[in-house]
Amino acid sequence: MSTSLPPARDKLLFTPGPLTTSLSVKQAMLHDAGSWHSEFNQLVASVRERLLGVAGLTRQSGWEAVLLQGSGTYGLEAVFQSCVPRVGKVVVLANGAYGNRMVQILKQAGIDHAVLRTPEDSPVDPVALETLLHKDPQITHVATVHCETTTGIINPIAAVGKLARDHKKSFIVDAMSSFGGMLINFAECCIDYLISSANKCLEGVPGFCFVICRRQALFASEGCARSLSLDLLAQLKGFEANGQFRFTPPTHTLLAFAQALRELEEEGGIPARAHRYQQNHEVLLSGLAKLGLLPYLKPEVQSYFITAFEYLPTPSFSFALFYRKLSDRGFIIYPGKLTQVDTFRIGTIGRLFPSDLQQLVNAIAAVLREMQSAPLLPSSSPNAPTLEPQVR
Amino acid sequence: MSTSLPPARDKLLFTPGPLTTSLSVKQAMLHDAGSWHSEFNQLVASVRERLLGVAGLTRQSGWEAVLLQGSGTYGLEAVFQSCVPRVGKVVVLANGAYGNRMVQILKQAGIDHAVLRTPEDSPVDPVALETLLHKDPQITHVATVHCETTTGIINPIAAVGKLARDHKKSFIVDAMSSFGGMLINFAECCIDYLISSANKCLEGVPGFCFVICRRQALFASEGCARSLSLDLLAQLKGFEANGQFRFTPPTHTLLAFAQALRELEEEGGIPARAHRYQQNHEVLLSGLAKLGLLPYLKPEVQSYFITAFEYLPTPSFSFALFYRKLSDRGFIIYPGKLTQVDTFRIGTIGRLFPSDLQQLVNAIAAVLREMQSAPLLPSSSPNAPTLEPQVR
Repeated sequence: MSTSLPPARDKLLFTPGPLTTSLSVKQAMLHDAGSWHSEFNQLVASVRERLLGVAGLTRQSGWEAVLLQGSGTYGLEAVFQSCVPRVGKVVVLANGAYGNRMVQILKQAGIDHAVLRTPEDSPVDPVALETLLHKDPQITHVATVHCETTTGIINPIAAVGKLARDHKKSFIVDAMSSFGGMLINFAECCIDYLISSANKCLEGVPGFCFVICRRQALFASEGCARSLSLDLLAQLKGFEANGQFRFTPPTHTLLAFAQALRELEEEGGIPARAHRYQQNHEVLLSGLAKLGLLPYLKPEVQSYFITAFEYLPTPSFSFALFYRKLSDRGFIIYPGKLTQVDTFRIGTIGRLFPSDLQQLVNAIAAVLREMQSAPLLPSSSPNAPTLEPQVR
Repeated sequence: MSTSLPPARDKLLFTPGPLTTSLSVKQAMLHDAGSWHSEFNQLVASVRERLLGVAGLTRQSGWEAVLLQGSGTYGLEAVFQSCVPRVGKVVVLANGAYGNRMVQILKQAGIDHAVLRTPEDSPVDPVALETLLHKDPQITHVATVHCETTTGIINPIAAVGKLARDHKKSFIVDAMSSFGGMLINFAECCIDYLISSANKCLEGVPGFCFVICRRQALFASEGCARSLSLDLLAQLKGFEANGQFRFTPPTHTLLAFAQALRELEEEGGIPARAHRYQQNHEVLLSGLAKLGLLPYLKPEVQSYFITAFEYLPTPSFSFALFYRKLSDRGFIIYPGKLTQVDTFRIGTIGRLFPSDLQQLVNAIAAVLREMQSAPLLPSSSPNAPTLEPQVR
């Protein structure tokens, strides 16, 4: 993309996002919209309403969708910085890098917190939460990640949420990688705040995140916000006062997102999208199993959004080379983020179809054959991935 | 844009941003880039370096360009939240809504501060600053807005910066509306941190902002950051560790921005762009003067980026109607933001040429004729602008 001639076709992104999106989503960005013109305000209002629809909620029943400029992490931090009172305390149930990121946010913001960790291959533990909630009355908020992108593990948010509600705590769910690709029952999971972003299962382009929350919970946080940019209640009040973002919105990203929501509807909503992702995942897992590449997680906790695979235990396997050879063929995969085990990750979300996953499987088979027959190349190739990928 | 057929041509945006951009800038967004793939990292590195080039600076001489997800206000808040120590105190020189926004950020973040206000039609006052700096040794940082978008006034940042340096204070400049459209001599103005955004005079699309700062100043702020998302030093360290944004970047916005920087070079850099904006401004002012529409500011303090005009003092003038009639003709102008005087604003930046401004002047002449001859319509038309526009 640094040359003046664009490539014939973009490489396909098998990552947790930004993802491969449809051409029509990207084409929606070929327009400049006035950020406070009535047409744009109507689009923003419609996006907020349709997001609630995707969640199976309505404003009438007390829910709001608040859009916020920035990546998913901004949305998460906005909830903590805006909604946890100065005397509040958050318990984070963590089993990966994104649970840890919540802890980092709380530390840096000086918000009191506790952490309940489980190993990276095990779901977070409601029993440990229950014990802590009995022991520590200071706790006001419970937070966890729905699909932990580190591994692709699905955490039991219904069990955690029920405990939070029973103990009258607010429940905050990071659903970055799952929202829009899996039905989430907000009532059953007792969710107060759910955070996700434009460029995940909703298949928009990156530029903003959103928080779906109980209006009452958000309004109860009046006066808590420690940041102007990340002030979630002020953001909602801004939309309600004049239909506008308080500060310049990524207008083109919003235009793309409106189109992405249209395409979700056309596909048949979450059930249809979930079905496509499941098929993607099945093609991937069965194809790679034949090549000896096995998922890190047990099937019963593995999501169909992203999967961590263990490195092949052969001396000829070099991830840097593997990555580069796949990239040369037009397939971008993702490095691992586990602390103990060498893994790489493959995402199965975005505008990808089972046939794309089959092509990826074929390419992986070809690359592994090449690697087995060829001498090892130095891993410092210019296309080798650097150490730790960001996401959100 | 909420219909499936896009309009033949977008309305032209005579606003402070988001702006009308070139088709080629928007077309650069028709690609999905892997946010940590080497090609994208190279593009980010090149954008950071070229931004310093636009500023007339280099990394070798101790400067850094740090890109940050979010609007311009996020960048401003990031400087305050990251770089002012807990025992620090900021004095803000304010003469409009964006100076006031700095104060709001500081208040909400609980950062000690003082404010030196001048009237909205007068530049900020270095003499008052000097007096305060002598009186209040607690002050560590001086902050002001270069071009205050409320009115379009240009503030004397060289005089303010020199005082800051003489008193060994850090100097923070909000150059949202001016950077890229006017030569700024960083050394002469003694700037430590300058904040601007992708969608202003650099003519990119909105989605991120950037801070151009002295590396030494930023590193001296180690440990100050009160927010993870807005941690400016961590963001720089992230770029230096692996070439990546710490959290998902707006990849498409970055692709557009790289193209926008290319187009700035092709145009002839800042001098050529400044010349075009000055011509735009002259066509606008001379055309509107003939219609009796006069700028709120005196010419010697008026920038050529955005201009506030006073309402016509005739009973037939209704801004809501004026706005709607111009919008119907394909021209979007901007409401005023002054506290005392009724004004509207017209921006002369973005991919606009003197011929566009002449078309706008012609449209305004036609609309004023219509308004003079027609009875007043109710001002609650569906296209009427709402009260207070956001920007940044």
